[in-house]
Amino acid sequence: MNFASDNTAGAHPAVLEAMVAAGSGAVGSYGADPWSERMTAALSQWFEHEVAVFPVATGGAANALALAQLTPPWSAVFCHRESHIHVDECGAPEFYTGGAKLVTLGAPGAKMTAHELAAAMADYPKGVVHRVQPGAVSITNATECGTVYDPADVASIADVAHDAGLGLHMDGARFANALVHLGCTPADLTWRAGVDALSLGFTKNGAVAAEAVVFFDPARAADFGYRRKRGGHLFSKSRFMAAQFLAMLEGDLWRELAGAANEAATALGEAARGAGYAPVYPVQANEVFLSLPVALAARLREAGARFYPWTPESGETGLYRFVCSFATEPDEVDAFADRLKFSGS
Amino acid sequence: MNFASDNTAGAHPAVLEAMVAAGSGAVGSYGADPWSERMTAALSQWFEHEVAVFPVATGGAANALALAQLTPPWSAVFCHRESHIHVDECGAPEFYTGGAKLVTLGAPGAKMTAHELAAAMADYPKGVVHRVQPGAVSITNATECGTVYDPADVASIADVAHDAGLGLHMDGARFANALVHLGCTPADLTWRAGVDALSLGFTKNGAVAAEAVVFFDPARAADFGYRRKRGGHLFSKSRFMAAQFLAMLEGDLWRELAGAANEAATALGEAARGAGYAPVYPVQANEVFLSLPVALAARLREAGARFYPWTPESGETGLYRFVCSFATEPDEVDAFADRLKFSGS
Amino acid sequence: MNFASDNTAGAHPAVLEAMVAAGSGAVGSYGADPWSERMTAALSQWFEHEVAVFPVATGGAANALALAQLTPPWSAVFCHRESHIHVDECGAPEFYTGGAKLVTLGAPGAKMTAHELAAAMADYPKGVVHRVQPGAVSITNATECGTVYDPADVASIADVAHDAGLGLHMDGARFANALVHLGCTPADLTWRAGVDALSLGFTKNGAVAAEAVVFFDPARAADFGYRRKRGGHLFSKSRFMAAQFLAMLEGDLWRELAGAANEAATALGEAARGAGYAPVYPVQANEVFLSLPVALAARLREAGARFYPWTPESGETGLYRFVCSFATEPDEVDAFADRLKFSGS
Amino acid sequence: MNFASDNTAGAHPAVLEAMVAAGSGAVGSYGADPWSERMTAALSQWFEHEVAVFPVATGGAANALALAQLTPPWSAVFCHRESHIHVDECGAPEFYTGGAKLVTLGAPGAKMTAHELAAAMADYPKGVVHRVQPGAVSITNATECGTVYDPADVASIADVAHDAGLGLHMDGARFANALVHLGCTPADLTWRAGVDALSLGFTKNGAVAAEAVVFFDPARAADFGYRRKRGGHLFSKSRFMAAQFLAMLEGDLWRELAGAANEAATALGEAARGAGYAPVYPVQANEVFLSLPVALAARLREAGARFYPWTPESGETGLYRFVCSFATEPDEVDAFADRLKFSGS
Repeated sequence: MNFASDNTAGAHPAVLEAMVAAGSGAVGSYGADPWSERMTAALSQWFEHEVAVFPVATGGAANALALAQLTPPWSAVFCHRESHIHVDECGAPEFYTGGAKLVTLGAPGAKMTAHELAAAMADYPKGVVHRVQPGAVSITNATECGTVYDPADVASIADVAHDAGLGLHMDGARFANALVHLGCTPADLTWRAGVDALSLGFTKNGAVAAEAVVFFDPARAADFGYRRKRGGHLFSKSRFMAAQFLAMLEGDLWRELAGAANEAATALGEAARGAGYAPVYPVQANEVFLSLPVALAARLREAGARFYPWTPESGETGLYRFVCSFATEPDEVDAFADRLKFSGS
Repeated sequence: MNFASDNTAGAHPAVLEAMVAAGSGAVGSYGADPWSERMTAALSQWFEHEVAVFPVATGGAANALALAQLTPPWSAVFCHRESHIHVDECGAPEFYTGGAKLVTLGAPGAKMTAHELAAAMADYPKGVVHRVQPGAVSITNATECGTVYDPADVASIADVAHDAGLGLHMDGARFANALVHLGCTPADLTWRAGVDALSLGFTKNGAVAAEAVVFFDPARAADFGYRRKRGGHLFSKSRFMAAQFLAMLEGDLWRELAGAANEAATALGEAARGAGYAPVYPVQANEVFLSLPVALAARLREAGARFYPWTPESGETGLYRFVCSFATEPDEVDAFADRLKFSGS
Repeated sequence: MNFASDNTAGAHPAVLEAMVAAGSGAVGSYGADPWSERMTAALSQWFEHEVAVFPVATGGAANALALAQLTPPWSAVFCHRESHIHVDECGAPEFYTGGAKLVTLGAPGAKMTAHELAAAMADYPKGVVHRVQPGAVSITNATECGTVYDPADVASIADVAHDAGLGLHMDGARFANALVHLGCTPADLTWRAGVDALSLGFTKNGAVAAEAVVFFDPARAADFGYRRKRGGHLFSKSRFMAAQFLAMLEGDLWRELAGAANEAATALGEAARGAGYAPVYPVQANEVFLSLPVALAARLREAGARFYPWTPESGETGLYRFVCSFATEPDEVDAFADRLKFSGS
Repeated sequence: MNFASDNTAGAHPAVLEAMVAAGSGAVGSYGADPWSERMTAALSQWFEHEVAVFPVATGGAANALALAQLTPPWSAVFCHRESHIHVDECGAPEFYTGGAKLVTLGAPGAKMTAHELAAAMADYPKGVVHRVQPGAVSITNATECGTVYDPADVASIADVAHDAGLGLHMDGARFANALVHLGCTPADLTWRAGVDALSLGFTKNGAVAAEAVVFFDPARAADFGYRRKRGGHLFSKSRFMAAQFLAMLEGDLWRELAGAANEAATALGEAARGAGYAPVYPVQANEVFLSLPVALAARLREAGARFYPWTPESGETGLYRFVCSFATEPDEVDAFADRLKFSGS
């Protein structure tokens, strides 16, 4: 009953096997190896578009480096107030961008809207030297609240961004979960909808550590290699990064794993609803948010469940996050559902 | 005959197996897992000292983050003119330190001496606001030229550094190779000799990606976790980093692998000497530097050998680097030796 | 009728004369001159406390450098949502701090309260590596809305900050205006109330360019000289900076000039109230905020009045800021009052 | 007998008078004032070219900001080993560029040559991700050793820089001294010779604080205003900066003042030669370097002379720098010459 995060799961055996298979033989380092070449080719095919791909160690690095590429230090990055880049990366975007300002917007639990974005941008007029300049827009898909921007949502935001000359970044730490929910193609959710740079994360979806910055316009990636190197994110034995991406794409493993995680979350949400605790946000990806009595939450923990409060616990009721992963077993969900019914009574 | 670098080798099966074994089950993320705890305990035992250990993605990240911890932005970092941090990290130390200045010293191919260090430090008087301030000293062991600082060498440099209040950093990308050459303990070569922070790298020695910053005084590591996080180097599934370190320490695998690499280099150096090309620098670790006719180097490459020119190729003779790894086969060395004799004739 | 800002005024003749008087003779540079020594002594007397004083070029530099001294890059700086450091310095604090995050709070037009501060700090728990850490608190006095924190206000905020180990910075671009309104001593409004670092600005009050960072605990200023130098803010001919501060303190010129500005603003506010446009915020310093029909504002501009919209002009009514300076003539206020009555009818 | 630096002099009365004259009346701030407009026009005329001019507080700021504009963080800035940007700015260029690396070259006391530059650049091949990339070239004119690059010197360096796609920066803290020595036009020594950005400093030449970054191609200045603002170098009362530049250009005051300084230095150099101490470097601008017995230097200081050792004093003989300014009186030079003869005997 570990619903603390999808990164508390291990790695899928197929990913590990791919790493083992990549382990022997001498090849070029720093990306000049056959696996890396195949990775770029495979991702270009996946996205139905030529892409420039830069594996890095973590999703935080991918986000921060992507934003640094899109925007100068004297800029504002527009993002949701609950976005991971703002809340959970200890200021990595500020570090990599050289001190850009993250301007937050949107309502808790909701997706950013094009209207909200336009309103926020109005506070940062172009050419006023006293104020940071509009620089980039970043959205997370699936969101930190387990909801999903569909291609039309993305396109409406991209339009506002592009009209003002800003690039659009997507934090895709749970990109596969979003894709599975929507049933659309990677292309539909990215470049066709106007995404300029994607942080593509397969770690939460079952890899060991497979994160990359993907640019859909190679010109946008100019000099990015130097940024990555300076950040210490150019792996010498890059083959092991590439092998993970290849394993995820092979036979659509990504879809199978994200599907399993999403299904588990849906089941958990339905079970909670049945127990009288309807999910606070729509369960579209692999996360469920429940408003529970604090005392109940404590009993669930005592029973072995692992999960985090989403907001600081105060008062009698708290908001809690439950995350399912590719490795979540139906039994775990059932056991949790039982506890929820039992504990709540 | 791939002598381009020790990172062109793959990973040792024992390391990969350890990762596979770590792959199942739900555990805490971001270092709150049993493997990470065991790693810290095992390294503390290895160093015979309580250590604070921070795995990161690459040796470049380890170096840059360690230096940022030791020294403020307005400082000079004294290092060898051929040091990896100066020559091969695209300015990562400057990025992470917020713009410190790397002050280079020493003669090509030689180890930094305490005397040279003291002389260089004299150019940066303390308290002169116009000049960057002495901040830290960094040495590489084994060096970029395949030679090794012994504990007395390290201590003499540490004395100069510490007398001026500076911390001493050691870039240990080939730390195991140095240890094997010296036959001393990890403690002898680090904290007992005055090292304050070590970049401990096992990647070149057969891991997938196992690099860490090690502090021998936990107080020196205060707030380092925030630095690492901001750099995007806190792995969510940290178990896979820890598992690699554990595999390397298990049964002294590190010693076996570094020993093999050093032996191969020694053999290659002897073979070269026999062919009339005595190694330019003493072969103490796993690297051999040969001064060869450019035309000969070209023929060797045609024959399938892989290696890098150490200095830009110009004129008739070039300086070339040959690196052996844990995976270098005696056959490869023999084949190369044959070619060297044959080609040279 | 120039109410655009107090920096549209020139400089007071006494300040310029002091600069002229300082202009001849050879003295030490970079602060090693008699004027600089006297400045520090005079300010120490003014503050009734030993102070470390660092003149810099602008208030923006003073703020950014002070914050960089108080807090590391991985921190949150708590400030008002309308604070100059957040809104009007193009990210200078982010640049100088190495990417700290400005966390904004408070209601528009209102002073920050200790309660609001404590609530905001609760979102940034200490020791959570994923989140920026509480680093410093910054308030502006007089505020950007022309109101004033009294010593008790400051002390209540300082208590919250200090209880959490954070330093308190005060942006004193209009410090003299605040002092005159309160009738208290500089000591009462700063170190006695818990201020750790003050950006002391006399430029708006009639100097050419007299801004300085003042630390009340010299230990807090350690190494600050290097920060300032790296920012390019150590003037070679420092005597001219010091001469301006001395001129301002001489015979309490600062009080006379700030008094004149405050009085002009009070008169302007009263006149506006008489015309049916009561000031939106209490007129405590030298600024008046009026809610006016946009059409009226346009007519006032046509009549030669200069002032800025405080919020983007949209709809029929706008919020406008009117700033008085030491040089504002009673005639200007009267003329404006006349136009306001006439135009509004 | 103050030969410590040209910034130990005060300011010329004409400059101070211009500031006084600019002191009254309300005008736009932050550069939107008539003086600033006139300054840009006057400098465009002076340079016979449209220029973008950005006043800043110090020469250090001008240099660092100019380099940050010319080159990205992952780059090498090629400069002389004795250059002010490397030796005397406490790492300001590293701070503003976001951590670029200053690569030093050239022989002590000598001007950088095109050949040396090309050789240094060869160590930084383009496109090698492990190494900082060639970014910009910076020369100082007049040099730190009192010598002068003539237009042909500059052009030969500019050719090497431009051929590699690098911009050329000139540190013109003593630009007027160079111009006077050469008798050429400002245009000849800058854009006509290939200079892309100039740090134009009149402070040492008699201003209070008049430093600016000058771009000869306005496109090169894009977004520079944000950089300057973030550095805290956009003066609110910009009129006072502009007034100083205008005063310096008015009636060619710059030439008169630099001429006086150069003449004094020439006289001092001749006197020293007469006393048996021939200047170590050609006296072309306003600096004289003498190799003197340390004991003699001590006696000169006792006699009231002020000057700095150029290299750390050790042994029996030292290298000393003597700087003359617009305010150096012939009597001072004569008195010093007398002492030199007398003391040396």
